[in-house]
Amino acid sequence: MPYPYKKMTQEDFDKIIEITDNERVWVGDEIAKEYYKDEMPEYGVFPPELYVEVLNKEEVSEIMKYAYEQNIPVVCRGAGTGLAGGATCKYGGIMLSVMRMNKIFPVDHKNQTITAQPGALLIDIQAAAKEEGLFYPPDPGEKTASIGGNVITNAGGMKAVRYGLTRDFVRCIEAVMPDGSIMNFSSNVVKNTTGFDVKDLVIGSEGILCILTEVTLKLLPAPTCSSTLVMPFRSLEECADMVPKVLDLPFVPTAIEFLERELIDIVERSLHKLFPVKHGEAVLIVMYDASSKEELDRAVEAAAEAALENGALDCNIAGTPERAASVWEVRGAILEGMKADSVAQEECDVVVPRSEIAEYVKQAKKIASAHGIRVEPCGHCGDGNIHTEMLRGPEMSDEEWKKATHESLTELYALSKKLGGQLSGEHGIGNGRLDFLEEFAGPRMIELYKSIKRAFDDKLILNPGKMIKIDEN
Amino acid sequence: MPYPYKKMTQEDFDKIIEITDNERVWVGDEIAKEYYKDEMPEYGVFPPELYVEVLNKEEVSEIMKYAYEQNIPVVCRGAGTGLAGGATCKYGGIMLSVMRMNKIFPVDHKNQTITAQPGALLIDIQAAAKEEGLFYPPDPGEKTASIGGNVITNAGGMKAVRYGLTRDFVRCIEAVMPDGSIMNFSSNVVKNTTGFDVKDLVIGSEGILCILTEVTLKLLPAPTCSSTLVMPFRSLEECADMVPKVLDLPFVPTAIEFLERELIDIVERSLHKLFPVKHGEAVLIVMYDASSKEELDRAVEAAAEAALENGALDCNIAGTPERAASVWEVRGAILEGMKADSVAQEECDVVVPRSEIAEYVKQAKKIASAHGIRVEPCGHCGDGNIHTEMLRGPEMSDEEWKKATHESLTELYALSKKLGGQLSGEHGIGNGRLDFLEEFAGPRMIELYKSIKRAFDDKLILNPGKMIKIDEN
Repeated sequence: MPYPYKKMTQEDFDKIIEITDNERVWVGDEIAKEYYKDEMPEYGVFPPELYVEVLNKEEVSEIMKYAYEQNIPVVCRGAGTGLAGGATCKYGGIMLSVMRMNKIFPVDHKNQTITAQPGALLIDIQAAAKEEGLFYPPDPGEKTASIGGNVITNAGGMKAVRYGLTRDFVRCIEAVMPDGSIMNFSSNVVKNTTGFDVKDLVIGSEGILCILTEVTLKLLPAPTCSSTLVMPFRSLEECADMVPKVLDLPFVPTAIEFLERELIDIVERSLHKLFPVKHGEAVLIVMYDASSKEELDRAVEAAAEAALENGALDCNIAGTPERAASVWEVRGAILEGMKADSVAQEECDVVVPRSEIAEYVKQAKKIASAHGIRVEPCGHCGDGNIHTEMLRGPEMSDEEWKKATHESLTELYALSKKLGGQLSGEHGIGNGRLDFLEEFAGPRMIELYKSIKRAFDDKLILNPGKMIKIDEN
Repeated sequence: MPYPYKKMTQEDFDKIIEITDNERVWVGDEIAKEYYKDEMPEYGVFPPELYVEVLNKEEVSEIMKYAYEQNIPVVCRGAGTGLAGGATCKYGGIMLSVMRMNKIFPVDHKNQTITAQPGALLIDIQAAAKEEGLFYPPDPGEKTASIGGNVITNAGGMKAVRYGLTRDFVRCIEAVMPDGSIMNFSSNVVKNTTGFDVKDLVIGSEGILCILTEVTLKLLPAPTCSSTLVMPFRSLEECADMVPKVLDLPFVPTAIEFLERELIDIVERSLHKLFPVKHGEAVLIVMYDASSKEELDRAVEAAAEAALENGALDCNIAGTPERAASVWEVRGAILEGMKADSVAQEECDVVVPRSEIAEYVKQAKKIASAHGIRVEPCGHCGDGNIHTEMLRGPEMSDEEWKKATHESLTELYALSKKLGGQLSGEHGIGNGRLDFLEEFAGPRMIELYKSIKRAFDDKLILNPGKMIKIDEN
C-alpha cells in the first residue's frame, strides 16, 4: 500500500457486509485465487483484501461512498477475461464483482436498443438481440466476457471493419462515481451535444474513472446472409497490398483477416484442424454480410475479381456456413495453437495505419528475430490491428525470455509510433503496458491523462495503478 | 473582466504582432463588428480586444504560451456560423481566427482519409473527396462552416441516420493546449485503446479545452445513386409512427425528415418555392443512397410498401436529382421561410428517443401555445432531433417575447428530460443555453464538467464562460 490507502480492518469488512450481505462477501484467504488475476497472470497477481458480489447500483454507490470516505481502493471486476492485467487489486482493497448484476432487459424495438447490467455476458446479449431479429455486431474473440468489461475496455474484434467497435454501439451509460454519485452519461438518443461527451471518455477507460451499472446498446437489423472468401498470395506484401483494394470496392466487408502459412501449419499440426486452402505463403480472409443474396453475390464477385487482378493465386469462396466455419475455426484457434506450440507467449497489440501493415509486419519479424524470438504476426488486417505473437522456445531461460520480449516490445512500439500507429488497438494498457504507455505517449500527454483521472477520482481510489501510474507519495 | 483576466495592454498587442505579423492583427475599434457575434447575436455580442489571423500551429502555440503566462482569455474562431453564441469573446481578450489555416491535403487513398487545417470549408472538403471518387458524409445545413467548427461542435445534419455525425468521421486531431503544448489525439488508425479517448472528449467540446490545428477525416466510397420518397400522412402521429417502421427495414435510410403542412405553407407562401406533394397534414421524407440501381430499387420498393401499409395517403418517389431537389429545397428553406414569416425566432434543439418523437411534438405545441407563441417543430425525425422553432408575432412586445420564450424553453427542456431526451442534439450549449444546461444536467454533472475543463485549462483562459459558467472570484 505505498500510496496512503487504508489497510482494511474488521470494521470495514463489517460495513461492506452491512451494505450487502454476509453470503456475498469474502475476505483474506477465503477469496478464490482466480480473482487475483485476469487472463494474463504475467501482468500481475494481486490478492484483494475483500471480495464482494453486488446486486444493484445502490450497493455499488454505498460501497463507493464508504471507500471514498475511508480511502480504500476499489477495483470493479466483470468476467475477468481481460488481456492487460486490468481487473486486479494492485493496491489491495475491495474487489467489487458485478457478475450477479447480469439482467438483460427486453429489446426496445422502437429505439432498436437493448439495455443490460454490466455482468451480462456478451454471448447472452448477442442471443437476446438475435431472438428479436436484431443484431449486436461487436464480436471480440472472447464470448464469455461481460458486457461491462467490453464497454470499459472498448472491445474490438473481427467485425470492426464493417461495424466498428463496442464504442460505436453504446448509446448510454449509467455509472457510479468514486464518491458514490450515480450518473447517467447520455440517454437513449442518437445524437447529443449537451455538455462534454463523457460517455466516450468513459468507454475504454479501463475502470479507472467510474463503475458501470447499466449500459444501453444500439442494435442493427440482422444481415440475412454472409460469405467468406479466402485469397492465397505468394507473399505477405501482396496480401497486405490487397487490403486497400478490397476497401475501395463499393461493398463494405465485415471482416478482413490475414494468416501466414507458418501460423496455419501450427494450428493444423497442434490442433489437427484443417484449413481448406493449401497454397500461398499468406492468405487474406474476407467476409461479407448482406441483406439479400443478390447484394452478397455482387460483393463476392467484385472482391474475387479484384483478388485475381491483384495477384491472388486463386479465390476460394466459402459460401455455406459449414465451409466458412472451417476457415474461421482455424483463425479462431490461433492463440490456442500457439500455446500448444510454445512454452510461453507474449503479445504486442499495436494498430498502424492500414497503409503501413506490410511494412510493420516485415520489420516486426526482423526485430523479433534479432532478439532470438519466434514471432507470428496475425490479426485484423482490415483495421491495421496486428497481433504480433511472440513464442518462447524451450531453449530460452526465464531471464533471456523476459529480456528479449521487453526489448522486442520496446522496438515494436517505437516502430508503430514511427509508422503513425498506436500502442494498443484493442487490448488496452491495464497493468501490463504501463511503462510502455509512458514512453509512447510522452510526458505532456501523461500529465493530461492524470488530470483527467483526477477530475473523476480525486482520491485515486478506483482501480489505482492501472493505465497510468500513481506517483503520489 | 470579472474573473481575474488581464486587460490587454499595448505591450500585449506588440507581443502578438511579434509572434505573427502586423498585417494580421487588429485591435479595439479596428476589429470588424462581425467578429463580435456568431449567427445568433441574441446569444451575445462581445468585442474582442485583439483579433489575429494565424497561419500555422506554431503561431497558435506561441500565442497560447503568452496568453497562459499573462492570463489573457483566447477564443478560437472558424467561419462564425455557429448557432449557440459560442465563438465570441465574452471576457474580452484575443480572438484567434484560423480561417487562413485552410489547407486541404491530398486524399490518402490507402487509408481512405483526408487531412485538413481547421479553416478549410466543409464544402471544399466535400468537393475534394468527391473529386477522388470518395465521400465525406456529414452534411449540416451550413456548407460554408469551417471543418474545425464542425469538429469542435460535433456538427450533425440530415444524413446522420445512415452515416452518423461529424464525430464518426474524425480519425485524429492535432491541437494546441491552453499552455501552448501541441498535442496529437489518436493518429490515422481505425481503432485505438492507448490511454483515454481524449479525441472524442475534444470533439463537441465547443472550443473550451484546446484549439484544433489539423484534423484527419475518414472518407467512404461514394454511393452511386440515391432516391427520395415523400410519404404524406393524415396526422403527425401517423407520420412519427412510421419512423421505426422505416428503420426496421433491412435498408438503412440516409435521411428521415418530417414537415407539417403549416410549415410547407410558410415556405411556399414566403419564398414561392413549391413542394411537390399537396396533401397530408404531415409528410415524411425518406432518402436512400445505394451503390447500385438494384439495391436502391429494392430499398425504395420496401419503404413505399411499408408506407402504404402504415397509413400513408400515397408515396411519391422523387427518383431523379431534379425531382429530389424540389423536395429538399423546401426542407432546406425552412429557417429562411420562418424568418420571412415572423418578427423574430427562437429555437429549441432537443433530441429525444426516436420512440418519443410524436409525444414530444404534441406536447411541445401545447407548451408554446400556452405561452402565446406560434411554434413549428420540424427536423431530423430519423434521429429524434427536433428543432422546435418559435416564431414571434408582430403583436408581442420585447418583454413578452423574452418571457414567453424563456418559459417555453424551460418547459420544453424539462419535457425532453422527462421523455429520456437531451438538451441539445446538434447546436450545442455555447453562451445561449448556459443556464438551461445547469438546470438540465444537475449539480454533480456540472461539477464533473468543471473538473474536466480544469484538467485541460487550469487557468480558464480558453473560450471562458461557454458551455459551463465560470464562478471563480
